[in-house]
This record gives sequence, C-alpha cells and structure tokens, in this order.
Amino acid sequence: MALAARERLGAAVAGFDADPRALEEAVTRGVLDAPAASIGEAAHGCEAVFVAVPVGSLPGAVAAALAGAPADCVVTDVGSTKRAVVAAADDERFVGGHPLAGAESAGVRYARADLFEGATWYLTPTERTSGILYERLHRMLHRFGARPAAIDPQTHDMILATVSHLPHVLANVLVTQAARTLAAGGERLPATGPSFRDATRVAGAPTRIWSDIYSSNADALGEAIGQTIAALQEVAQTLAAGDREAIAAWNDRAAADRRRLLEAQLAGGPLSELRVSVPNRPGVIAQLALELGRAGVNIADLALHPAPDMSEGVVALWTTGEGDSERAQALIEALGFPVTRP
Amino acid sequence: MALAARERLGAAVAGFDADPRALEEAVTRGVLDAPAASIGEAAHGCEAVFVAVPVGSLPGAVAAALAGAPADCVVTDVGSTKRAVVAAADDERFVGGHPLAGAESAGVRYARADLFEGATWYLTPTERTSGILYERLHRMLHRFGARPAAIDPQTHDMILATVSHLPHVLANVLVTQAARTLAAGGERLPATGPSFRDATRVAGAPTRIWSDIYSSNADALGEAIGQTIAALQEVAQTLAAGDREAIAAWNDRAAADRRRLLEAQLAGGPLSELRVSVPNRPGVIAQLALELGRAGVNIADLALHPAPDMSEGVVALWTTGEGDSERAQALIEALGFPVTRP
Repeated sequence: MALAARERLGAAVAGFDADPRALEEAVTRGVLDAPAASIGEAAHGCEAVFVAVPVGSLPGAVAAALAGAPADCVVTDVGSTKRAVVAAADDERFVGGHPLAGAESAGVRYARADLFEGATWYLTPTERTSGILYERLHRMLHRFGARPAAIDPQTHDMILATVSHLPHVLANVLVTQAARTLAAGGERLPATGPSFRDATRVAGAPTRIWSDIYSSNADALGEAIGQTIAALQEVAQTLAAGDREAIAAWNDRAAADRRRLLEAQLAGGPLSELRVSVPNRPGVIAQLALELGRAGVNIADLALHPAPDMSEGVVALWTTGEGDSERAQALIEALGFPVTRP
Repeated sequence: MALAARERLGAAVAGFDADPRALEEAVTRGVLDAPAASIGEAAHGCEAVFVAVPVGSLPGAVAAALAGAPADCVVTDVGSTKRAVVAAADDERFVGGHPLAGAESAGVRYARADLFEGATWYLTPTERTSGILYERLHRMLHRFGARPAAIDPQTHDMILATVSHLPHVLANVLVTQAARTLAAGGERLPATGPSFRDATRVAGAPTRIWSDIYSSNADALGEAIGQTIAALQEVAQTLAAGDREAIAAWNDRAAADRRRLLEAQLAGGPLSELRVSVPNRPGVIAQLALELGRAGVNIADLALHPAPDMSEGVVALWTTGEGDSERAQALIEALGFPVTRP
C-alpha cells in the first residue's frame, strides 16, 4: 500500500512497524519516505492511514492511529474479519477494509505497487462514517487499481466464514480423520489420491495468522459449521435410506452450484475446463504451456494430478477467453495428448 | 488391461462390451484379439478374466463371468468398493481387485498398456480363494507394472470412504452451502479464492459413476461422515469457548497430519513445497517448468493460485528428489521470482 501510494498517488508515506528491522528495510528499499517511532507519530499529519496487523491486534492499533491522526484523516485497516474492529473503532474517520489480495511471500522486500490491480476491496462504512472521508478512501483504492465494494460487517464475516474459513476447517478435519483411519487400517501404502490432496491443500495453514482469524470470526464460523453439520446429516440419511435418485439429484445440484460459483468469480467470462492426459516427466507442462502461450491462450488455473507412481497424470486447465478453450484443445491434441471436457 | 496383457504377457485377449461400437473399436484398434457375444462367451477358455463395469452392475457381471469361465480360471474386477461384490461372488476362482489408477479420458481409444505402472492394486482374497489362482493373478499384475497389495474388503471400503468418497461429499456440501450464503448476502462479486477452489474441485463428479460408488459404500461412508460431524462439533465447541490455545493446537495437529500423509504417499522420499510469486501471463509456467526440467528436477505436483483479476499468482510446487527443492529454489530465484517455503 505504501508503494502503491507513492507510485500511483505521488504521496509521501510515513510508517511504523513493531519490528525495527522491518521498518529500517522499508526505508532502505524506498517503500517509506520516513520511519516513525509509534503508530500515533506515523499517523500525525496524514490524509489517510492503513493499519495492517493481525486481526487480534487491530482494535488497539486502530485506536492508536485515530488518536494520532488529524481530524480530517481517513483511517482504515486490511483485516480478514470486520465486525470486531468496526465495533471497536466508533469514529467518523474510520472505515473498515479488506482487500482480497495478497501473496505467499511476506515481508517488505516482496512489496509490489500493483498487488491490488483488479482485486475486490471490501469496505465497511457505518452510519457514523464521514461521507467525504469515505469518498477519499474509495478514490485512493480505485487509483491503486482495486475495485472497492461496500458491504456491511455482518455479511462480510458470514461470507468469508463460508468461502474461506470453513474450507480451512474442513481441510484440517479431513487430514486428521484420514491419518487416524489409515493408521487403524495398518496401511503403509495410503490410498490418498488427487481428490484428497486438493481437499486438504490448505490444512494446517499458518497457526499464528489463522488462530486469530478463527477466533475473531468464531460465531459466524460456528454458524457455518452448523450448516455443514446439518447438510452432512442429510446426506448420511439419504445414504442410509438407500435412495439412489436422491443421491443423484444431490450430486447434480452440487455440479450446477460449482459451475455457477466459478463463472461468477471470473470477470473474464465463462470458465472452460480441459483435462489432458500426459506423461509426468520434466518438460511436459512446459511443452503445453509454451504451446498455449505462443497462441496467446492464457491459463486461468491449472492443476496436475499425478498417478500414484508419478509416471503419468492428468493436467486440468481452465481458460476464460472467448474461443480459447476450443483453440487450446486443438493445439494440445495436435501435440498428441488426449483431451477431454468434463 | 487388455493392452497390458497382450503387450506384457503375450496373451490372446477376448472381450465383451455392452456397447457394440466400443467392442468393434477395441478390435479395430488391436486392443482385443476377438470380440465375444456375451460375458460368458468371452470368459470361455480363459486363464484370467477382468470385469470392469460400474460397481452396481458388478455382482451380475461377475456371476456371468464365473458361469462361463473354466474351473482353473481366476476372475477379478476393478470396482471402487469391494464388500458387495466379494459377498456376492462366493467362488474359489474370484478375487476382488481395485487398481488405484485411471485417467480422465474414458474409452478404448485412450487405452494405454502402461496405465498401471507403479500403481497400488488392491486385492481382496477370502478364505475360499484358491491359492494357485491368487498367485497367478498377483504375478500378472506385477507384470502389468502394478504393486499388488492384499487387503480385506472391510478395511478397503473404510479407507476409501475416508480418503476418496468423503472428500467428494464435503466438496458437494461446500459448494451448495457457499452458493446459498452468497445468494443470501446479495453478492454479485463472490469472494471465493484459491482455498475454496481447491476444496471444491471434485464437487459434482460424474453422477452416473458416483451415485453407484456412494450407494455401494453407503454404510462405511455414513460412518466416515459421522466421524466428520463429531470432529466439526468439537471444533465448534472450541470456537464457542474462545479457547485460543486449543484452536492453535488443533491447527498445528492438522499441519503435522497433512505432512505425514503426503510423505507416506510418495515413494520418492519426503515432499518439499516451494511457493513462487509470478505474474500470471502466458509462458510464465513454461519458463519455470523448462528451467527445472533442464536441470532434471521433476515436479511431483503443481498448483497455480491466481489473484482475483488473474494478473498475478502464486505457483505451489512439490518436489521429492534429494536436494531437488534447494536446487529448484536457487534456479527460480535466479529467474527473478520470489520463493518461499511454507
């Protein structure tokens, strides 16, 4: 955000970090113009303040920023849950925020001014929020390249509980259950395949960050878990009743829901999936990607599902452009790899 | 299997398919030596018979094969669940089987003799099974390149319920719940990210195949679902109690279980994950894969997690070879992409 503000707004940026080395590096790398000795000092004289700390520390940090900031300064945060911080910061200068962006590489040396290009940036204005300050923040985010979208904190936390926090909980539960089942079966060759790998990819996400997220959204997440339990009980009953038509209808409904969600997510148009059978040797993904790259077909998402011995696999490719899927299929088939459309 | 038997055992292969066109194509393409008019006719005079039909049709098809096969012929199947067919086929010539192999590309034109290379092939002999016939089947599968592993039908179905059927159920439940939550929130910009995409990749898998699998393993799957419900209730209680230490310990346990399962799955040694931040343009995956391919580093698994606008993303790479992870990191950093180890 500091880089984006300097490069895209021509702003001068002051900053504070609890870690003195991080603060020093930010100045050395030209991310900050000036280091400050505290949050309040950094906020002094600003037009806008962005607070980026773990969600458990947000209320205190936001209060410190509001205490140090001028009367006409907008203060915002970037936490993954919004109700707690919005309830704590009852000030017309505060607007809660949550950019749906980020990278795995933490630290100021990986900072990029274009991180927010195209990203949804949720904002949670309240009745108390100053219209002038909200408009200023909105305009800044727009110039960062983001798409600001207002949402109330309750809806925000409920949606994130379902589409982000719940998948993490399910992944955790699934790996632990599988580890126990496989141990009970005395299996030394666990039979976990690609579906298991995908379902548990986010299991055990970094505890320091995720404990905070789970705790700060405990009630919404608890409600989402309750809905999942109810749905699972319904599935279990259908299975126990041996109602094959109901099972088929339930599965068809899930297929339709999945496609609808994926399409809605992508601004670029409907999503097409291709599956390619390939030998799993170095260079084969390169060969595919290069061929599509030369033809200007962009790959929105890609997953390699190897066979148990890694000798062969299926590459799932998703494209979004008009006609890209058909072109990709023709190009890949010309390379001699079988292509199917699921 | 027909191709593998011809190429690797020098066998003559007869076959039957309910679809006359599929049968004709198999002969035309040299997969079968001779078409037959029925399962029983195909089994006539054979040393071994492989039955490959949806699990709901297995008992009838296996009975027909046993009726037509000689007294010293081994009959097996390749169904995803084993108790029902093993219970139905009470014959010393029958051995249930389940190769953990396959491809997304169905149909005889995609048949490959090397499909089973390195794959675990579960076999479910019973007290009645002929030792001589079991040994013959085992030797054949070994020559197919597979690793035969004996398992009792109960354990097989329990393990598969947890590591394969349950993840499919959870994916179905999750997409439907998310679709409902997002609709209730009135959101036109759903906030689903990579974690959601991974968790729901197998949602709505082909109904014709999966209805059969769910139904034939309904009790084991029901039990697995029950365990998941119990685990979710425990998580919900921990969240409701606001016990942050318990939440952290639970998350750490999941991280350890995930790593243990992934390592056990891969014969090639411990699994190392690297995460690379990349711009999401055509060719960038190719650049990475080519660089690693040239250096002989094989990629066991790979996932691209794009940013919301597809402008940038994180590529997660898994390697297994000794020292491969370190070499891969050095090579990728030399290309100018930041690498982290989660």
